[in-house]
Amino acid sequence: MPIAASAFRPVKLEHASRLINHGPTVLVTSAAGARRNVMAAAWSMPVEFTPPRIAVVIDKHTFTRELVLASGAFGISLPGTTLIDLTWAVGGASGRDVDKLARHGLVTVAGPVLGVPLLEAGCAAWLECRLIREPHAEDAYDTCFAEVVAAAADPRVFADGHWSFRDDNVGLQTIHHLGGGHFVHAGAVARANPA
Amino acid sequence: MPIAASAFRPVKLEHASRLINHGPTVLVTSAAGARRNVMAAAWSMPVEFTPPRIAVVIDKHTFTRELVLASGAFGISLPGTTLIDLTWAVGGASGRDVDKLARHGLVTVAGPVLGVPLLEAGCAAWLECRLIREPHAEDAYDTCFAEVVAAAADPRVFADGHWSFRDDNVGLQTIHHLGGGHFVHAGAVARANPA
Repeated sequence: MPIAASAFRPVKLEHASRLINHGPTVLVTSAAGARRNVMAAAWSMPVEFTPPRIAVVIDKHTFTRELVLASGAFGISLPGTTLIDLTWAVGGASGRDVDKLARHGLVTVAGPVLGVPLLEAGCAAWLECRLIREPHAEDAYDTCFAEVVAAAADPRVFADGHWSFRDDNVGLQTIHHLGGGHFVHAGAVARANPA
Repeated sequence: MPIAASAFRPVKLEHASRLINHGPTVLVTSAAGARRNVMAAAWSMPVEFTPPRIAVVIDKHTFTRELVLASGAFGISLPGTTLIDLTWAVGGASGRDVDKLARHGLVTVAGPVLGVPLLEAGCAAWLECRLIREPHAEDAYDTCFAEVVAAAADPRVFADGHWSFRDDNVGLQTIHHLGGGHFVHAGAVARANPA
């Protein structure tokens, strides 16, 4: 059964880093004027808790980079295990040639601050991001820095600032790309004990 | 039973990005003169396949940052699930006050190119890294860029350029920090099917 968009709940900005702290593969959404796109990105990380800032690698030759520079914003959505095939598919085609959102029947919601297109169905969470222009890092390392201006998550898997991976929410568990279309998902949880 | 250091085998540099592609929490090792340290870092990512380059967030107030700037190098080791408590412990104490490697009985091997201390026992892999000085990114985002100059892995969990997570190597599976000492490990594998 599709997951209703209304299932999402706001995540406090001071908890936003936790959404990608464990290294999930993400979908990067972007739009400028009538053009829009979605790409997969395995390479992202938080860089600051407060204000919440992240870094994500967006190759300078991609259509996404063009839209991000034009709009100064992008979305990060976290696909769950039911979107593994989709994630792999959107990582292997360019949005210059086809509207990948339309091709895959993806419905977006508008981010509350910047209006960035964001994905909810099948996703665990999203982060709406404002690009921080850093031309040198963008050019030399394809690394785009951004401030997270809003975040939300499906409370069945992330609530009150914490992930909860359980047998009953495998479909919403984050996926982590090993390479070549192989992913692990965040199912097996362990807790550190104080030394 | 402790894992013998000799179990490690070289990883081709073109496969180095795959070691951290899926977002594991890592241990950052460093040394300058007689001083040395180990810290935990959840925030790292590849930024380039060839030459293999990575980014890792090392707070400017840490002892590790001081040693990395002094030596121009650091090591990234990937703790397995048996080192969850250790990873949490070294993330919560400063190396200025105590030699954390000695306190926790950690034995290091010297990186083949730069002589950086690296961890093998209980770890899945390591990457020996040469810092690429980027003062602005280091200052504004605590983000340190580096080139990977050598890499190696335990062939029981990473061989021929690929991860293999199985029931018989749970102890070597990478760990991914959710926050607050909660980790997931890379156990449940799924493969994308072409669209």
